[in-house]
Amino acid sequence: MSAADDRRHMAHALGLARRGLGRVWPNPAVGCVIVKGGRLVGRGWTQPGGRPHAETVALAEAGSAARGATAYVSLEPCAHHGKTPPCANALIAAGIARVVSSLEDPDTRVAGKGHAMLRDAGIAVETGMMATEAEAMQRGFLTRMRQGRPIVTLKLAMSVDGRIATVSGESKWITGPEARRRVHAMRATHDAVLVGGGTARADDPDLRVRDMGVAHQPVRVIAARNLDLPEGSTLARTARDVPVWLVHGADAPKARRDAWQAAGARLFDCAEGAGGLDPTAMLAALGAAGLTRVFCEGGGQLAASLMAAGLVDEIALFTAGLALGADARPGLGPLGLTALGGAERFRLNSVERVGADTLSLWSKT
Amino acid sequence: MSAADDRRHMAHALGLARRGLGRVWPNPAVGCVIVKGGRLVGRGWTQPGGRPHAETVALAEAGSAARGATAYVSLEPCAHHGKTPPCANALIAAGIARVVSSLEDPDTRVAGKGHAMLRDAGIAVETGMMATEAEAMQRGFLTRMRQGRPIVTLKLAMSVDGRIATVSGESKWITGPEARRRVHAMRATHDAVLVGGGTARADDPDLRVRDMGVAHQPVRVIAARNLDLPEGSTLARTARDVPVWLVHGADAPKARRDAWQAAGARLFDCAEGAGGLDPTAMLAALGAAGLTRVFCEGGGQLAASLMAAGLVDEIALFTAGLALGADARPGLGPLGLTALGGAERFRLNSVERVGADTLSLWSKT
Repeated sequence: MSAADDRRHMAHALGLARRGLGRVWPNPAVGCVIVKGGRLVGRGWTQPGGRPHAETVALAEAGSAARGATAYVSLEPCAHHGKTPPCANALIAAGIARVVSSLEDPDTRVAGKGHAMLRDAGIAVETGMMATEAEAMQRGFLTRMRQGRPIVTLKLAMSVDGRIATVSGESKWITGPEARRRVHAMRATHDAVLVGGGTARADDPDLRVRDMGVAHQPVRVIAARNLDLPEGSTLARTARDVPVWLVHGADAPKARRDAWQAAGARLFDCAEGAGGLDPTAMLAALGAAGLTRVFCEGGGQLAASLMAAGLVDEIALFTAGLALGADARPGLGPLGLTALGGAERFRLNSVERVGADTLSLWSKT
Repeated sequence: MSAADDRRHMAHALGLARRGLGRVWPNPAVGCVIVKGGRLVGRGWTQPGGRPHAETVALAEAGSAARGATAYVSLEPCAHHGKTPPCANALIAAGIARVVSSLEDPDTRVAGKGHAMLRDAGIAVETGMMATEAEAMQRGFLTRMRQGRPIVTLKLAMSVDGRIATVSGESKWITGPEARRRVHAMRATHDAVLVGGGTARADDPDLRVRDMGVAHQPVRVIAARNLDLPEGSTLARTARDVPVWLVHGADAPKARRDAWQAAGARLFDCAEGAGGLDPTAMLAALGAAGLTRVFCEGGGQLAASLMAAGLVDEIALFTAGLALGADARPGLGPLGLTALGGAERFRLNSVERVGADTLSLWSKT
């Protein structure tokens, strides 16, 4: 097998892995491709809910053809008995001859043990293939493992001068239907959608993925210090269909807590800082609850508090061809920066036209 | 000659025409290609300062080969004796058999007379080829002819949240060196660069095209109601090398007028509106002085006054990967819009990566 072949199969495994993004938490989204004599004999990816694992699916497809084959996995096969037996065991039992993997799994129950088990069984193991791509795709899971929090993608949909609504609050629609459809596709690849209480009060949002033909829905998280949210809202009415998680502070009235719990919401008591809920504590709580990828859709105050705390990992910036002026509502609240050097720089990943608007994707460097 | 051949030659003529943008005002930037038996025998474009015209240059190159040839011109050949004899006469005299042109010249001294002269001389004339492309390229000249004002390209170089400087005014550098270089290339394709007095006071700008290997420099226009500009500034020191035009109001002190005139600047007395110089009157004055293409580089107040008056024709938006927050300086001042429907929509022409930043180009629809 040439290096180019190896790379091609790993790219395939990474593409399969990506299908799981947003629907496998708290597990990683993994892809597996099994190749024998240059022929693809099995492929799999982590299934919704996180099980079965990618290797299990690919081995089942390969059957006896797995004997003597090479398995490409986008993350180290697991080594521990969790809700399923270790994938390392399954690869050994199936007679796999060689394993090519992208990354070591930082989960302390794995952390090299999977690769070691394979090597101990006489399997040739190569690691680090397309590690950069795997790291980028897997950033949510890895950040949760390493820092205990999900990654945050901040969506901004703004006029050319960075505004999200007129001074009177009119915001429907700045960007066009293609951009809004893309937002729904982005929601579907995240574990949760997050908005602030102000946005929830102003817009009565639904926050579900619509018109994409997907059954899976992200968790809907609202950061609302005092739980001051209309109880007859869309979120309240649908909390039993798709999870609603409310992050609140110590002063949230008991009556509101009770009402939201009765409506089916899950409540998170969160520490507060000077300007509201402490964003670091909030993300730690969401990470502890299993989330790996959070899609923040505003408003400006929440976005600014995440940005100021260094918690924005990715930015999805939609820009529409109109100007609203400095008296219109900004997409990001105040940051208190005095020097340019104090602003974090984001790296441009891609930029494209989406309908009448542009979309640029940026990652924290 | 097939229609595809015609289109290819006209695209060539338009490409040549484009070379004149920014350096031929008050004349249009025209391109001309002469083709005989499928072979290119002459090409030309309007030369710096507006003369010789494209047809003259192309005919000189073609020489006797022009007899029986087809001439492709990106604008109707002129019919009037100005500083040069009419190009229509020259085409007839050279024995051109067929003329393909993009647009009728709205200059009342031409306005169809050029085409008529050619037809009267027995030349086959086809008009309207690639008219949309020619209109877009020629927008500055056409707007001056039709509305008496230059077009305005508004450059915005901002953070992802639409900011051009921190709260303390630090703005060097938000965008990267590639974007700044592109700005210089854009300056070179405009007749003039325009900034407001606040920007001139804060930045002591030079506003010349640097590091592009171009000899041509755009006029530097400052909109400064009271002429409150530092007299020892870079602009004052260089006003004899590259033109400095100052647009001011009735209250500008005589001493300042005298000092700037002594330094070599040209002064324009302009009507005022509620919030400062009247942008419509300012552009009329600049149009009367011959400008066809103005590149506005801010600041926010000037940009907003042009936008509010419906005078921004093109937007060049550079976006850098950092956020500065709502307390930082906005790229565009207040517009007083209450409804989204009141905002003009701009059409996206292109979007691309420029170094670490993005650049999107928009046109008023």
